Amino acid sequence: MPSLRLALAQVDTTVGDLDGNAALVRRAAAEAAAAGADLLVLPELALTGYPVEDLALRRSFVDASRAALGHLAQDLLADGLGDLPVLVGYVDRASGPVADGVSSAGRGQREADGRQEGRREGGAAEMPKGLPQNCAALLHGGRQVGRYAKHHLPNYGVFDEFRIFVPGRDLLVARVRGVDVAVAICEDLWQEGGPVAAARDADAELLVVLNASPYERAKNDTRLALCRRRAREAEAVLAYVNAVGGQDDLVFDGGSVVVAPDGEVLARGEAFAEQLLVVDLDLPEGSAQAPAVERVQRVVLSEDPAPPREPVPAPVAEPLEDMAELWGALVLGLRDYARKNGFRQVLFGLSGGIDSAVCAALAVDALGASGLVGVSMPSSYSTEHSQTDADDLAERLGIDYRVHPIAPMVDAFLAHVPMTGVAEENLQARVRGTLLMGISNSEGQLVLATSNKSELSVGYSTIYGDSVGGFAPLKDVAKTDVWRLARWRNADAAAREEREPIPEASITKAPSAELRPDQTDQDSLPEYDVLDALLEDYVERALGRSELLEAGHARDDVEQVVGLVDRAEWKRRQGAPGTKTTPVAFGRDRRLPITTHWREEDA
Amino acid sequence: MPSLRLALAQVDTTVGDLDGNAALVRRAAAEAAAAGADLLVLPELALTGYPVEDLALRRSFVDASRAALGHLAQDLLADGLGDLPVLVGYVDRASGPVADGVSSAGRGQREADGRQEGRREGGAAEMPKGLPQNCAALLHGGRQVGRYAKHHLPNYGVFDEFRIFVPGRDLLVARVRGVDVAVAICEDLWQEGGPVAAARDADAELLVVLNASPYERAKNDTRLALCRRRAREAEAVLAYVNAVGGQDDLVFDGGSVVVAPDGEVLARGEAFAEQLLVVDLDLPEGSAQAPAVERVQRVVLSEDPAPPREPVPAPVAEPLEDMAELWGALVLGLRDYARKNGFRQVLFGLSGGIDSAVCAALAVDALGASGLVGVSMPSSYSTEHSQTDADDLAERLGIDYRVHPIAPMVDAFLAHVPMTGVAEENLQARVRGTLLMGISNSEGQLVLATSNKSELSVGYSTIYGDSVGGFAPLKDVAKTDVWRLARWRNADAAAREEREPIPEASITKAPSAELRPDQTDQDSLPEYDVLDALLEDYVERALGRSELLEAGHARDDVEQVVGLVDRAEWKRRQGAPGTKTTPVAFGRDRRLPITTHWREEDA
Repeated sequence: MPSLRLALAQVDTTVGDLDGNAALVRRAAAEAAAAGADLLVLPELALTGYPVEDLALRRSFVDASRAALGHLAQDLLADGLGDLPVLVGYVDRASGPVADGVSSAGRGQREADGRQEGRREGGAAEMPKGLPQNCAALLHGGRQVGRYAKHHLPNYGVFDEFRIFVPGRDLLVARVRGVDVAVAICEDLWQEGGPVAAARDADAELLVVLNASPYERAKNDTRLALCRRRAREAEAVLAYVNAVGGQDDLVFDGGSVVVAPDGEVLARGEAFAEQLLVVDLDLPEGSAQAPAVERVQRVVLSEDPAPPREPVPAPVAEPLEDMAELWGALVLGLRDYARKNGFRQVLFGLSGGIDSAVCAALAVDALGASGLVGVSMPSSYSTEHSQTDADDLAERLGIDYRVHPIAPMVDAFLAHVPMTGVAEENLQARVRGTLLMGISNSEGQLVLATSNKSELSVGYSTIYGDSVGGFAPLKDVAKTDVWRLARWRNADAAAREEREPIPEASITKAPSAELRPDQTDQDSLPEYDVLDALLEDYVERALGRSELLEAGHARDDVEQVVGLVDRAEWKRRQGAPGTKTTPVAFGRDRRLPITTHWREEDA
Repeated sequence: MPSLRLALAQVDTTVGDLDGNAALVRRAAAEAAAAGADLLVLPELALTGYPVEDLALRRSFVDASRAALGHLAQDLLADGLGDLPVLVGYVDRASGPVADGVSSAGRGQREADGRQEGRREGGAAEMPKGLPQNCAALLHGGRQVGRYAKHHLPNYGVFDEFRIFVPGRDLLVARVRGVDVAVAICEDLWQEGGPVAAARDADAELLVVLNASPYERAKNDTRLALCRRRAREAEAVLAYVNAVGGQDDLVFDGGSVVVAPDGEVLARGEAFAEQLLVVDLDLPEGSAQAPAVERVQRVVLSEDPAPPREPVPAPVAEPLEDMAELWGALVLGLRDYARKNGFRQVLFGLSGGIDSAVCAALAVDALGASGLVGVSMPSSYSTEHSQTDADDLAERLGIDYRVHPIAPMVDAFLAHVPMTGVAEENLQARVRGTLLMGISNSEGQLVLATSNKSELSVGYSTIYGDSVGGFAPLKDVAKTDVWRLARWRNADAAAREEREPIPEASITKAPSAELRPDQTDQDSLPEYDVLDALLEDYVERALGRSELLEAGHARDDVEQVVGLVDRAEWKRRQGAPGTKTTPVAFGRDRRLPITTHWREEDA
């Protein structure tokens, strides 16, 4: 039984950084070769970063991706790594007609304009070569010896791949050390039939899957169950390599996994960290007379078995529990947004409340205490305990902390333009936003918006006020989960005998915007546990009014909250990006009209 | 030769307003019947409004659309209009398996979560019934007698139909007055083969096409050429009915048209206005033994020829010239955004510059002089002529006009948090934004952002400053076109012997943000004619660096402008919607990562 030493590289690439990403591939290849690996696999679109969005529609970008792949192959050879087969994702152009039928859905066209590359008005047979594809390249001996284009293009949720890519229809099976290795990319794995079935039909012993699969809570369990099912169906070992790192609203969480056909987990990578996962696989020898399967490109790289060598134990990382995983995702999402956009520091208001306290603890974990400037901006409605809690937080974290009372600026506005009620409340928030942006413009920090998903859902934030910022770490975290995170982070610190970062008072006190005397959030909203359960059913599960009532939500709550959510769409549309953590985040994941008279009450 | 009196209803529907839209259909049916029409056709998704975006993924919404259609059929009967066949667009559920192959592109699934309706992990054969479709219903005698589901789902530009709908594969041919009438929806017309070819194969004499086709400059010419080509190919008269009205970023421009197989324009509707277009068609009689064409639903409504009647002359509206058309689109986009979102007044800063002057003239044309509040907010850097020009504009338009100098508020900030340079410039813009939002919060106006596309391209606007607002009328209008619009609007007024609305000084003076002494836009940007030509090539045509140089743009300009455009993505992402007028507007039409290290210079 031949053995194959497989290396999976969880790398944190940056969209568009072709040189930097190629350097990550070369580093991984050097490590893999040093570890004696027979094959190295990198994530989906590792060379370009993922997702590339409409960059794929720029001819110059696709040309650059192809050129960078060629240089990478040569550089690997020059590095003395030409013998190591490397599978890496990149953007290429279709080399021939694409799968029948898919063209009928109109991809690549612009209804009235021919300027966007790839426009056509024809059926599948006339589809020209040259439209972009989401590809995996097999590099060996200084050149590209194989290519696989993703068959199944996700076009739901945050994904727009049918907009920018055309699907592939061919398969790639590479013989390495006498073992037949089939290739698939991400969504291909989630679909019945297709590449998984083809891998079985082609008698492949190993199916490697290149992924850039974004984090959602509990998704790891789903992925593992899927990998087990597909390994069984493919009658092959399945190696799933995932990207790691933050990209705008998305965090790729790593957690690569290798599963045997019987479901055994042979190796698992860390979550939220770069890692080269090396695993020795004992596999049946590939058939020299492999069955002829339509559209399979077979590439023979090496028939000889590996030399005798000491097996290496493969790491099997323990899955994280829910809050630890969520914390890790938020830290990585914030860290990578700041780092990849060139920010060393973040800046935001410290109110003494739970949202800014959790943001502060996240920021310190992401960037260190020197990476955060906190600004307390008390008003005449701010309570003394808020000031105390903010001071306490800043002291615990050891951050740059400043206090700017807002009364002089607020009064200057009110002296010239009278505002009362909501107008005056919003004025306070906007003066704070203006102060933060002014400091940022002077000193260069990234401003963070600290709002949570519950507030953004019902529109309880002031546009151009507390919503200002380039990134919103808690955008997709419900208020009740913000509290859970705070308790988890404090408990984690206590378990490590470190000081708890978040003041207990910030966790336990009643939440308030403190924009008028004695205000609390529950003056005008249901209790947060009631609200969050309702929001999950309405926003994430898209239940209608009657379904919400059937699910047990109170009629008054349904009427109030559904209306609030619908009317806040215009504000959310102007919101900053933030890490997706749920099945349906605000932003590209949930696309709704601003102008709409649809009300669930009508149904 | 039988004659058919065809009525096409350009109606201005509202997304989600099922009752209101049904009322528009009933009104059109009453008018059509009174005009003796034999068939009434309404636009794509007229019953639900277009585009419905992710509302299509809500079960309650699809159920409501189906129920509203049933009520509409009954109401038409009760109105005494049951004899008039009515074709109207609505959202329905797929009643059977969808076209082969299309499923392979992954539509309707969520990678890891089964909660979104329509998730599946199967091939076409297993696709369940019940996924949403973009349909046309044929109503007659109080019930639905035919159904057609759109075959070609656009998923490029602003369109996301492959995300929310599954394609149809059947055809509908209705025999009315002995004439065979085939049906298609919007994108179906832009594709070779498919419904157009099927209409020919089925020997239809008339092909009616339901559309919701958004305005772009010069698109009308493209549409007419296409209609002529398809009429020839279908060997049938082609009746193209388009929606009219504004919906967030889109304006549907009407301009419905009826074209003979030889290309003659038999009728054309007005642009930007609701209209019932009635046209008498002399058509060959349909064959009683129509050829059997696969998947064609044939519905026989009436074989009898129409009674003798006086022919009515069909209107053939003259196409508008470019600036008149652009002005009409911007007026309708602004009017409908305000109206459909419940605003009677808009509010924005009048600087004396050209952008706010053109916005003001647009707003008065859209909402009347009483629909606009203009606020002059001079700073210490504002020139005297700016104040004079703003005063002059307000006087010409006869609007509610207020002056709030910003020095006291700016000074209050500067006294407590020192800001210089760009920070101080932005502070002025943010104080203005805060003032406008404060007035809006007190009085209820819709705040407009007055920035043009050139500024938004290069990031020359202050986020949370002059970018505040719920709608941005000039978002997709280049600066040079803003000047053209101003000259056109003044000339149009002069031609009608009305007072010119825009002060000549606002048109002729050098553009300046007036945020520091003697500032002009050209201190830091190329001349606007040079800039706009470069932006069109980079943003709309997506040319790369070498292509831009080949096109004759100066190297320094390319390097500066491409960098500015790329770095401003984070600000644009937080921008207000505004009417699309070009082939590639910012927003859903151009989806790019914020975090990216891609630079055209690298290619």
